[in-house]
Amino acid sequence: MIILKIGGSILTEKDSAEPKVDYKNLNRIAEEIRQSLYAEEISNDLIDGLVIVHGAGSFGHPPAKKYKIGEPFDMKDYFSKKIGFSEVQNEVKKLNSIICEALIDYGIPAIAMPPSSFITSHNKRIYDCNLELLKTYIEEGFVPVLFGDVVIDDEVKIAVISGDQIIQYIAKFLKSDRIVLGTDVDGVYTKNPKTHDDAVHIDKVSSIEDIKFLESTTNVDVTGGMVGKVKELLDLAEYGISSEIIDANEIGAISKALQGEEVRGTKISKD
Amino acid sequence: MIILKIGGSILTEKDSAEPKVDYKNLNRIAEEIRQSLYAEEISNDLIDGLVIVHGAGSFGHPPAKKYKIGEPFDMKDYFSKKIGFSEVQNEVKKLNSIICEALIDYGIPAIAMPPSSFITSHNKRIYDCNLELLKTYIEEGFVPVLFGDVVIDDEVKIAVISGDQIIQYIAKFLKSDRIVLGTDVDGVYTKNPKTHDDAVHIDKVSSIEDIKFLESTTNVDVTGGMVGKVKELLDLAEYGISSEIIDANEIGAISKALQGEEVRGTKISKD
Repeated sequence: MIILKIGGSILTEKDSAEPKVDYKNLNRIAEEIRQSLYAEEISNDLIDGLVIVHGAGSFGHPPAKKYKIGEPFDMKDYFSKKIGFSEVQNEVKKLNSIICEALIDYGIPAIAMPPSSFITSHNKRIYDCNLELLKTYIEEGFVPVLFGDVVIDDEVKIAVISGDQIIQYIAKFLKSDRIVLGTDVDGVYTKNPKTHDDAVHIDKVSSIEDIKFLESTTNVDVTGGMVGKVKELLDLAEYGISSEIIDANEIGAISKALQGEEVRGTKISKD
Repeated sequence: MIILKIGGSILTEKDSAEPKVDYKNLNRIAEEIRQSLYAEEISNDLIDGLVIVHGAGSFGHPPAKKYKIGEPFDMKDYFSKKIGFSEVQNEVKKLNSIICEALIDYGIPAIAMPPSSFITSHNKRIYDCNLELLKTYIEEGFVPVLFGDVVIDDEVKIAVISGDQIIQYIAKFLKSDRIVLGTDVDGVYTKNPKTHDDAVHIDKVSSIEDIKFLESTTNVDVTGGMVGKVKELLDLAEYGISSEIIDANEIGAISKALQGEEVRGTKISKD
């Protein structure tokens, strides 16, 4: 079973002030997923199913910023925070509908599972989450689609749960074979490769030691950026689940990775 | 606690071949809900919270009909049914986003809970459904919004769960005080009042005996029509939860009903 994460920076125009889908990427990626799922020789890892997790991009981040969702707040502001919670949730769900529609158009039986409707957190970490239905959808041959979302937290009331945290949680439960992370950069670098010519690509990360010297690279956002991603994935590596971070802007990279072919990127695994 | 059902025929142009929202009704009803929730003297039943359930209207019915979702099928057609399932789910979710957006615009902290992400059924009746999160949202002062949806069924694989069935199920669990059903007619008649001049309005239904002579009245659709609604509500009446069917096209009817004022309609209750 493979979990494919597609970053919000790939599927939306992330820096847009208005929510804006990158339809060119979305349709291309839907086609790459279709090719992998319905390949004549389907990869071993895909036979047991596929789960897609996507980021919130320019749909989630503007309202989250506007209402300062994810930051500590005073209970006298709870009502306004709740409106913010509702707004963020509705925006990311809209993006999710657009993504599911593209997947369905390409013949993929995508089914949305909004985290806010079945996950709660304790101090910003998922702690209550019934994944039986997710498992049932996979067993029946559906492709569940989850996403970074806001959830009810029993400590801080309102929490942002990133797609990366969701992956970390569900991968263990589902005993996923592999994680593919499609981002806007082909893996982890010693420095931000977009601003530093002397940035060196890291092919493999096996422990926290390998990344402790890293500056934040790309995608510094409320959900954690690259260092946050790698930390979540290292935790999975401990459970024997390996991941690879690849460039989803590169045509064919997602389809190759899903089919188990070699793609330039960073591997996160224990060995 | 009140559960408000708003029919798909109110919020969408139900007979439209294309999905089409009735924005005039939607915005008016959002405003009526706002007035009731934030009234100076909030009604006793509303103090403990509000849950909204809406129908699928012209968003759900066309794809459900196209793929014959809800009808028995041969397993060789399962893949095509799954695509149909995904399409129906995505369409009703789109309608739900539009409805939530209007509610949020009117200052109501609406939160979507798509039944397909936490409910499964056994032979077309809900049997597995974790409602703890729904309860938590209500306790925190959110207004959960559910809707008629498709769900995974352990017997017939794919089932349509109507908003009316959802109400029946959650009302018991939440120990709801009252149900308000906003439909396109002001209650139950002896005949379809839109086609029969001699149709007589029924003010009150206390048992199945009171409706056994009824022809199907309005809204004959895959989810059951008026007789189906009344049967679900009679079951609740047995548990001491009373309901009223009112005309949501009538300006002010929903706001009056939420505030516990008298509205022309049909009451379903044990006494």
